[in-house]
Amino acid sequence: MIIGIEHVSVASDDVTDLLRLFGVFGLRETYVEDLAEEGVRSRQLDAGNASIEVLEPLRDDAPVRRFLASRGPGLHHVCFEVDDLDATIVQMQAAGMRLVDPQPREDGQGRRVFLHPRSGHGVLMGFVQRHARGGA
Amino acid sequence: MIIGIEHVSVASDDVTDLLRLFGVFGLRETYVEDLAEEGVRSRQLDAGNASIEVLEPLRDDAPVRRFLASRGPGLHHVCFEVDDLDATIVQMQAAGMRLVDPQPREDGQGRRVFLHPRSGHGVLMGFVQRHARGGA
Repeated sequence: MIIGIEHVSVASDDVTDLLRLFGVFGLRETYVEDLAEEGVRSRQLDAGNASIEVLEPLRDDAPVRRFLASRGPGLHHVCFEVDDLDATIVQMQAAGMRLVDPQPREDGQGRRVFLHPRSGHGVLMGFVQRHARGGA
Repeated sequence: MIIGIEHVSVASDDVTDLLRLFGVFGLRETYVEDLAEEGVRSRQLDAGNASIEVLEPLRDDAPVRRFLASRGPGLHHVCFEVDDLDATIVQMQAAGMRLVDPQPREDGQGRRVFLHPRSGHGVLMGFVQRHARGGA
């Protein structure tokens, strides 16, 4: 079950400009990570109840580069937080939805899958079950 | 200053299908409103910390209809909650950003403006200052 929006992702070919834009509204970068497999640099900006992710391609063959070439900079995907990722995957499969990867990816923040835009009404949707947080 | 993401908006040419999709993940419609000026029906789904808005054109000349014709269904805009809309407008103007409307629109939930995608790095961004909530 979806319990919240974790982040909204924006693909950018001019990160300096985009960070300046969000800076006008008080959004600051809190985390940066290079995702080697996807060929992107991911920057997280704290937006209060959720994050904005800024995606920048690091290679010409990165999927985000192709997205920018065909659609230009803009909204790329939305990632939802779920309470139980395995149960969510079972529900998606039962509904005949197609996942981008058959197995969840694991990163520093949790385990996540992406629903293919063809199954997501044109929207690339991520679903993450966050790692249990400590006493922070 | 941005204090949160209020909603993420999805443009749809098959609302029944999209509502079924979000229903798989437990998202339910909580509010529906026809926006005569924009020619759209807006449905809000409660996603926990924020909402998903489903936008459906009601007229052939609605901007959302043109969006669907050129880009297909998918992510349409993101709306941020701000603490002080008038101060945010002053900051946008000082930064040379272009607003869609010169004056804020008022609806049942608050006063809002939209930043033109040309000033928003390809992203249509709304900014809302919500009406003060009562004791609910």
